[in-house]
Amino acid sequence: MEFQSVVLDDEKNAVIILDQTKLPLKQEYLKLTTVEQLWEAVRALRVRGAPAIGIAAAFGVYIALKQYNTQSREEFYNKFKKFRDYLESARPTAVNLFWALDAMERVITEYRGDNINELKSRLLAAAKDIARKDAEVCRKIGEHGLSLIRDCRGILTHCNAGALATARYGTALAPVYLGRENGCSFHVYVDETRPLLQGARLTAFELSRAGIDFTLICDNMAASVIKSGNVDAVLVGCDRVAINGDTANKIGTLGVAILAKHYNIPFYVCAPVSSIDPDTAAGADIVIEQRAPEEVTEAWYKNKMAPEGAAVFNPAFDVTDAELISAFITEKGIVYPPFEEGLKRIIGGSL
Amino acid sequence: MEFQSVVLDDEKNAVIILDQTKLPLKQEYLKLTTVEQLWEAVRALRVRGAPAIGIAAAFGVYIALKQYNTQSREEFYNKFKKFRDYLESARPTAVNLFWALDAMERVITEYRGDNINELKSRLLAAAKDIARKDAEVCRKIGEHGLSLIRDCRGILTHCNAGALATARYGTALAPVYLGRENGCSFHVYVDETRPLLQGARLTAFELSRAGIDFTLICDNMAASVIKSGNVDAVLVGCDRVAINGDTANKIGTLGVAILAKHYNIPFYVCAPVSSIDPDTAAGADIVIEQRAPEEVTEAWYKNKMAPEGAAVFNPAFDVTDAELISAFITEKGIVYPPFEEGLKRIIGGSL
Repeated sequence: MEFQSVVLDDEKNAVIILDQTKLPLKQEYLKLTTVEQLWEAVRALRVRGAPAIGIAAAFGVYIALKQYNTQSREEFYNKFKKFRDYLESARPTAVNLFWALDAMERVITEYRGDNINELKSRLLAAAKDIARKDAEVCRKIGEHGLSLIRDCRGILTHCNAGALATARYGTALAPVYLGRENGCSFHVYVDETRPLLQGARLTAFELSRAGIDFTLICDNMAASVIKSGNVDAVLVGCDRVAINGDTANKIGTLGVAILAKHYNIPFYVCAPVSSIDPDTAAGADIVIEQRAPEEVTEAWYKNKMAPEGAAVFNPAFDVTDAELISAFITEKGIVYPPFEEGLKRIIGGSL
Repeated sequence: MEFQSVVLDDEKNAVIILDQTKLPLKQEYLKLTTVEQLWEAVRALRVRGAPAIGIAAAFGVYIALKQYNTQSREEFYNKFKKFRDYLESARPTAVNLFWALDAMERVITEYRGDNINELKSRLLAAAKDIARKDAEVCRKIGEHGLSLIRDCRGILTHCNAGALATARYGTALAPVYLGRENGCSFHVYVDETRPLLQGARLTAFELSRAGIDFTLICDNMAASVIKSGNVDAVLVGCDRVAINGDTANKIGTLGVAILAKHYNIPFYVCAPVSSIDPDTAAGADIVIEQRAPEEVTEAWYKNKMAPEGAAVFNPAFDVTDAELISAFITEKGIVYPPFEEGLKRIIGGSL
């Protein structure tokens, strides 16, 4: 990848993020130096994707605590808890944010010495470890995923669970990137993912940078594309997995899963263990973030919504099979199945 | 309704249309005086909706032929055929365009006299009749539809099959409008309908003008809304119905039908008889119009995409039930159903 979603600049006391709200038009990096700036960046989706949010939070808390002058472990811990509560309020659904801050908290609670500087070094190591492990996790998800999709050609994905959402490779896109390194040639159908267009703006950006064939579609075109036989498997990421397997992911994932089931196509959720929440029994227990209406009613950009030259599939209609239709309501009455008989009869009569 | 989608101004030799590409920001009427202007208006979706296109084409052909000076029936007929072929090329999928021009052609071929002026009067009567009958058809669809949905509260619709798409009342929205006149209070969930946002721009405009409760959603939110139990029936229009019942309608309709089936909600297609095509055996025989990539990649507006104050449902995620997921791919392996067992086991192991 020629970009990195989240990097720590320890010397400059900053978390450097690629501002994902500017993509694909501008590749602009932001230097976040306060917890408030980090909160805003998470909230406004400048940094997004469950793993990337966790990494950014760990780096950000480290940077903030590093600059906090105290020799009291109690004061230090209270400061951490203040930062933690604040950052967790930025986005309630992604469990990795909580998971990463848990890992940082454990460093503080388990540290037995008096030396705050040493504790700070340990927090730095822990934060770096979260980022390093995420890259490993992505690679392994890629390997396991690739064993399932090696013989596939068409892959459909929703939202962005790629390199931008993680430290490297991504989750849902990891099998695709790894496959390419191993000579597989996939064609990825990219749901644009309304309202914020993470598919059109981010996944399309990543895939075009990586030279992977893709077609951008509106979310409502997925049924038509799958029906056409061009999709062999669906790969998506996740924000939180309940212990019974219920999975929270970007709005629209449920609909894609129903389509995949209808057409007998495998639907794979790529899930780092950190996104599995043993404290959540089922999907109904997951808090779903509600976002501003303006995201739906106003255009994301004044102009372009996808990278230059992105391939697009843009039929004006699709065909709904008769078996899916309950009845036709016409001016001459209601036609129930079997339709051929009923429709012929209704055409036969006078208007 | 305080607007009309298509009106004939016989004195000024013009077809007056409400320019639907300007809605909901501006309510702007266009005066079309040539067949070329009409072709452009149909192609660019300034006038849209299968019935409205048929009406506009009938009016437009009448206006053009009225101004054609000849006393030869053959010349007159050839001129008509030229106009017909040209107009039919504007949009290949909507059968009403063909149907309306067929009706006009029958007037010419069946007319036995020599008086071209009388023929012109007959064409005027035929075109007006198409518009009048469409209004009747909509009302009847409304009555039949209302008998099915009278006890419903939540109705989901896709695209715009309302007053803007027809001479009056619409098709899919007719039962809703008629229900309101009869004291029913529906709540309509409006799919925004990417890429051209006919739901957000047009259906939301119509419903807000009519004072009917509605919630605008992105297309990919329909699964979540239906799952929540808020939708009792789906009503959609259609562009062409094959004789076996396969139905072409706005892209995304197929996906909604699959969702409705999955959740056991009735899915009703509101279809004027004119949209049933006995010459089309099945959906596979329907030509699907492919439109420009820019419709997907570029924003429709520089700014607002829905009427001021439109209610919006905007969750950031949804929950996919475990039963819909084929497997979880984690860095520690793949988890197949039953998930609870497999996920607990994988959390138990070390990273």
